[in-house]
Amino acid sequence: MNLKKVGDDPYVGETLQLSLSKWLTPNDGFYIRSHFDFPQISKNEFELIIDGLVDHPISLKLDDLKKLPKKTISATLECAGNNRGDLTPSVPGNQFSNGAVSNAIWSGVSLRDVLNLVNLNDSVLQILFQGADQGETESNKPHEPYLRSLSKEMAFDPDTLLAYEMNGEDLPVEHGFPLRLIVPGWYGMASVKWLTKISAIDSPFSGYFQGKKYVLKYTDGSQKPLEEIQVKSLITFPEDNSHLNVKQISVQGIAWSGRNPIDSVQISTDNGQTWNETELTGPSEKYSWRHWQYLWNPPSNGVYTIMSIAKDSFGNNQPLESVWNELGYAVNGSKPVKITID
Amino acid sequence: MNLKKVGDDPYVGETLQLSLSKWLTPNDGFYIRSHFDFPQISKNEFELIIDGLVDHPISLKLDDLKKLPKKTISATLECAGNNRGDLTPSVPGNQFSNGAVSNAIWSGVSLRDVLNLVNLNDSVLQILFQGADQGETESNKPHEPYLRSLSKEMAFDPDTLLAYEMNGEDLPVEHGFPLRLIVPGWYGMASVKWLTKISAIDSPFSGYFQGKKYVLKYTDGSQKPLEEIQVKSLITFPEDNSHLNVKQISVQGIAWSGRNPIDSVQISTDNGQTWNETELTGPSEKYSWRHWQYLWNPPSNGVYTIMSIAKDSFGNNQPLESVWNELGYAVNGSKPVKITID
Repeated sequence: MNLKKVGDDPYVGETLQLSLSKWLTPNDGFYIRSHFDFPQISKNEFELIIDGLVDHPISLKLDDLKKLPKKTISATLECAGNNRGDLTPSVPGNQFSNGAVSNAIWSGVSLRDVLNLVNLNDSVLQILFQGADQGETESNKPHEPYLRSLSKEMAFDPDTLLAYEMNGEDLPVEHGFPLRLIVPGWYGMASVKWLTKISAIDSPFSGYFQGKKYVLKYTDGSQKPLEEIQVKSLITFPEDNSHLNVKQISVQGIAWSGRNPIDSVQISTDNGQTWNETELTGPSEKYSWRHWQYLWNPPSNGVYTIMSIAKDSFGNNQPLESVWNELGYAVNGSKPVKITID
Repeated sequence: MNLKKVGDDPYVGETLQLSLSKWLTPNDGFYIRSHFDFPQISKNEFELIIDGLVDHPISLKLDDLKKLPKKTISATLECAGNNRGDLTPSVPGNQFSNGAVSNAIWSGVSLRDVLNLVNLNDSVLQILFQGADQGETESNKPHEPYLRSLSKEMAFDPDTLLAYEMNGEDLPVEHGFPLRLIVPGWYGMASVKWLTKISAIDSPFSGYFQGKKYVLKYTDGSQKPLEEIQVKSLITFPEDNSHLNVKQISVQGIAWSGRNPIDSVQISTDNGQTWNETELTGPSEKYSWRHWQYLWNPPSNGVYTIMSIAKDSFGNNQPLESVWNELGYAVNGSKPVKITID
């Protein structure tokens, strides 16, 4: 893996700053946030069970899934804890800087097409997804699997995928081989890896990874489950704390906003006093980050603080300051880069 | 390489039918059409020379290029000789079936940004590109390098790239490491691999690979140089000559048209008597192929001939029959697939 290690047990790694400048993140450079050891699943023994409140539970092999219409989606995944390390005061958890975000091309089948193979009872409210990964969530409690649910509405969204391919290759083990749920535009925790069971349920699921973790807990006591990725931008070049001796700099970065296209990215080279429009470049796909650039002629030698803020097509603005929350999620404030021109 | 070998000396291989169903072609599955042995170029020794009718010739290292604004484009390349094997009567040359076409994400710099570093003389008419690959083009003639030119207009198109990345990785050797010209929407011969020299010239170039090869020579004596990829579609599933025993088939395929977006793809399951609209799916990028699908319920068991035709947004229609030409280029007729339902 070509990553910056953030945690060891289980393995957690973020995408290198250098790779953030690539529109497509290669598989071995895609950030990894796993909760337990990677389960090893053999392609031939793999079975996906669909049960719960359905007329007849079924079980599908990988080849059965591959016979359904193949669907491809370009989607950026961001870990809910990306940039957690920027929060003051600091909060426990993986101290990601800004690399727990990557972009790939996912192929598989629409979850909808699979759910349509079973007859859901009228009482079904949510669809529950179980990964083959499991372990201890809280001390002295029995091991439990990774579990997350989606509303029936999100589960039947045609873009919610059961993916078996990532960038045209079989899913790598660390990204959920052989099958991963992909919920484009949502924080990564929703895209359950090593997916082995789908259950139709009639009440809201509130297990560990949905009721206790992955919840925004604000200082005023309010709480909100994490869902859509919030609007955000990052400067990928120049790097923070770098020295440059050039007359013109092509400042470059990325911007994304869950299920909304990016409308514009503004840049300030004077620590937020004045702002200029950047140019959006490269591929433009609904669920993928957008590249941007700005040609800048520094007026003189010295130290500069560069900042960017993005706006999406629904009018959501990236905030200058992140909103602190107890578990350090959805940290999307403008991330300044300090450079010296000499 | 994960390809079907078409030629051995030099190596020529086409993308596997299975990989044509992937929107993104992995690097090791991307078709290869080379004219000479792959030159081995070291990253550190590499220099790109820009000379000819310019005020001051310059030479750039790879790191110099990487300091210019990075640009990413998604583009399908098709070899001009793709589907040559389908022509009757047959013509000499690599007998490609339908796999000399692939899709990748290319990153590098706008050629325009590099040309703007030198001052072109007013007399400049074309820009000439030289690869490091060379060999014998005609018997008893001295070795010559691979050379192709572009009009000044095409050279200054902001989407014409000098690419150093393919799908987020360094360019593989067989795809032009370390630098390749990418002319999106044009047949592959324009995207000069192992690019080492760019020269500004004041007359139309007519060397071997531009004046003798890669020219459409029709039976009526007319000739036309190959440029933009012609509108075309292919069925990727089911495979030709396959047997299926299912009630419903998701017929799937790809469609592309050089620099024009695909407008629609029609399908016939009765050998061209009646036609139905297919659904376009997956990523939609100007220079990349588009996926399509059609849910079909075969009315009874038997043998069926399925065909597809694409139309682009400029009203160009894929022809039912390819137009025969002496060297077998731009073969874009509808390609029937015969299947048996039993």
